[in-house]
Amino acid sequence: MLSEDEMPQAWYNIVADMKNKPLPVLNPQTREPVTREQLSVLFAEGVVDQEFSQERYIEIPEEVQDMYRIWRCTPLVRAYGLEKALDTPAKIYFKNESTSPIGSHKLNTAIPQVYYNYKQGIKHLTTETGGGQWGSALSFACSKFGLDLKVFMVKASYHQKPYRKLMMNTWGADVIPSPSNLTDAGRAILAQDPDCLGSLGMAISEAVEIAMRNQETTRYTLGSVLNYVLMHQTIIGEEAVKQFEKAGEMPDIVIGCFGGGSNFAGIGFPFLRMNLAEGRNIRVVAVEPQSCPKLTRGVFQYDFGDTTGLTPLIPMYTLGHNFQPADIHAGGLRYHGAGAIVSQLLHDKLIEAVSVPQMETFEAGLLFANTEGIIPAPESAHAIAQAIREAKKAKEEGVSKTILFNLSGHGLIDMYAYEQYFAGNLKNFTISDEYIRSTTSELPDIIK
Amino acid sequence: MLSEDEMPQAWYNIVADMKNKPLPVLNPQTREPVTREQLSVLFAEGVVDQEFSQERYIEIPEEVQDMYRIWRCTPLVRAYGLEKALDTPAKIYFKNESTSPIGSHKLNTAIPQVYYNYKQGIKHLTTETGGGQWGSALSFACSKFGLDLKVFMVKASYHQKPYRKLMMNTWGADVIPSPSNLTDAGRAILAQDPDCLGSLGMAISEAVEIAMRNQETTRYTLGSVLNYVLMHQTIIGEEAVKQFEKAGEMPDIVIGCFGGGSNFAGIGFPFLRMNLAEGRNIRVVAVEPQSCPKLTRGVFQYDFGDTTGLTPLIPMYTLGHNFQPADIHAGGLRYHGAGAIVSQLLHDKLIEAVSVPQMETFEAGLLFANTEGIIPAPESAHAIAQAIREAKKAKEEGVSKTILFNLSGHGLIDMYAYEQYFAGNLKNFTISDEYIRSTTSELPDIIK
Repeated sequence: MLSEDEMPQAWYNIVADMKNKPLPVLNPQTREPVTREQLSVLFAEGVVDQEFSQERYIEIPEEVQDMYRIWRCTPLVRAYGLEKALDTPAKIYFKNESTSPIGSHKLNTAIPQVYYNYKQGIKHLTTETGGGQWGSALSFACSKFGLDLKVFMVKASYHQKPYRKLMMNTWGADVIPSPSNLTDAGRAILAQDPDCLGSLGMAISEAVEIAMRNQETTRYTLGSVLNYVLMHQTIIGEEAVKQFEKAGEMPDIVIGCFGGGSNFAGIGFPFLRMNLAEGRNIRVVAVEPQSCPKLTRGVFQYDFGDTTGLTPLIPMYTLGHNFQPADIHAGGLRYHGAGAIVSQLLHDKLIEAVSVPQMETFEAGLLFANTEGIIPAPESAHAIAQAIREAKKAKEEGVSKTILFNLSGHGLIDMYAYEQYFAGNLKNFTISDEYIRSTTSELPDIIK
Repeated sequence: MLSEDEMPQAWYNIVADMKNKPLPVLNPQTREPVTREQLSVLFAEGVVDQEFSQERYIEIPEEVQDMYRIWRCTPLVRAYGLEKALDTPAKIYFKNESTSPIGSHKLNTAIPQVYYNYKQGIKHLTTETGGGQWGSALSFACSKFGLDLKVFMVKASYHQKPYRKLMMNTWGADVIPSPSNLTDAGRAILAQDPDCLGSLGMAISEAVEIAMRNQETTRYTLGSVLNYVLMHQTIIGEEAVKQFEKAGEMPDIVIGCFGGGSNFAGIGFPFLRMNLAEGRNIRVVAVEPQSCPKLTRGVFQYDFGDTTGLTPLIPMYTLGHNFQPADIHAGGLRYHGAGAIVSQLLHDKLIEAVSVPQMETFEAGLLFANTEGIIPAPESAHAIAQAIREAKKAKEEGVSKTILFNLSGHGLIDMYAYEQYFAGNLKNFTISDEYIRSTTSELPDIIK
């Protein structure tokens, strides 16, 4: 535990320490790097500045720090119960981001994003949400700063996850099942298929369209992938570094699950800083679902961030923007690509990536629930599964290792997924090389 | 925030400081005080000793402290956002018990109760649960100590709150909709009414019956009302006292919602200690639902703890064990009586009691969600409503006051209640004097 006064007062921008900088994001028409001006139409100026920044540390505004203090610093916990169950010589720690009011790490970036929009005089925000974690976080933040929010929620989730919708409503957000009749994009889809249950790509299109249509007062927001989003999350790892320093230890292995990269970067980048700047040798491991293996089986190429091709081209490890992830319960990890920074780090072998099958993640989640008491989000269970693998390996090898993973969120709103597991309705999905070839073959050949 | 090392290492037993001790619990047949031996058939010896203890402090066992440290100490938070919204000169603080893995304070007593059973070699526990908070807490604790657990869950809740049931399943508990075919009591009810949706009283009967039938290996557990349960919760207030001392302040008013008394005692008794032992003058206020007004409109008399009359006779402010609380969403506050200690304190005017109508509690809960970001449990919203009343009064009177309330739990699993509020389906319930006279008139005339 850190005291409030010990909360880090700056985010860490890993770009400053990277020898090979991330490749620029490109305008798909001109294939020239996207400019500040172009991005500022869509996003708040404060975050656009951060997207391009090369500064090592960016100070966290006082108002944002005050809101972080509602729940931060978060606990660093030694998982004694899990260690005992595994009979391992390894020490296992987890950073508990589930203690935030919305139950996950997403609030770490929702608050500054809304803050910079608020400072700029923006009155309305739009976003999309799949599982609902990001939409909940942004609703909370908008409620605190008094901004209006429209959340386009994938229609399938809208009906499956009524509690998530109600949380957003409670914080005053307008939640719209997507595709909707509010946008050209939505109307076009509904004309073709009135029963369409939507997708994240479609919801992004709707949210972007509304923001573009009202540029005077409205901006769009995104909960992962972009550089500044990843940077906001480094508060997690910066706290963890301080907590380990206080305990006179340092982890050998740092593990985060991987969807768009925000929770992974949050826990991992501050430890990578110690590798890059201080010559340490801490392993930083990203864990993705076996069924959505962009880091372990994707290609490093420019691709769109959304499935319909509205965003700039991002340099990413990707499965192709037409890749359809299997219907796993870790909704936050069902994304086809990784952001520019993480992709460059992986390309340069500065981080590792592994994939785990769905059943193993639920087994890991249940073992954790029964030893540490916290029911993890299905996404976080991926990090737990890898921590268990590492702890078992340490036992086989008879060596003591210190393992840290990020518990990005609790699973109290995802109990439906556990019900399906208990009922024996879940399975693993393996993806054929052929399918990945088919979804990556059309990518532009920009990175040689 | 306190550091781990600063966590209190003893529970506070207020009986030591009471000039008028609580009246004894009686055997309903003999009307003699119940003995240790009689209670030990039903409860673990460790807690029975505590039930009769006159010691001021009882040390928290090392193993229990270790488990408390999974989430304790809990934050003491200044509610700046709420203060601003109310434009009040009062300072408002809340103790955030919602950060526990199960989302409420119930774990503070579930852990020691299971611990003492475990030490005694008990293998199986039984309990009842209404809304599911207590059942979840006990499931978590049983999972940690490796005991089996049968939870009799009121059938109406079993169907309305599938997430609660699934949480208990995740921690390995057997959850049985009550009334069931497992007990004589259940079978008798079902023979009369196969569609009966159950009640807390019926679920208690079933849980007690199973425990009594297997005395070698099985004990029953209860989540509120009894002296030792209240004492376990004082970890909340003892932490808060330390946190205020560290901040160089002390509250003028301490507020807790009131069902069976455990969260109220938890936050309130350590401050009452300062009144009783140090001559301070801190107001300690219990907040009950307008529709279940045992403290403000009940009688002080001996009554049964359950609706069917199986328990010993407890000296309580009560509405009578046949009182049927209205169908409000704060399920944890739908209880007809208060425990022996709280009742004596109220009788001696050492604490205050107020009631608030349901609609006011949801308005308060929403204001809190939108200013502090945390969606409160409907029970906790009663404490918030009273804190708001006190803050408004401070503004009217133009005086600065320091108000503390206990946020006993979050409402993430209670979003259905908020949905009903948004839909305009909730209302206030007022209870007629006549109804209270009818349900209290049959009580035995023991307290003169």
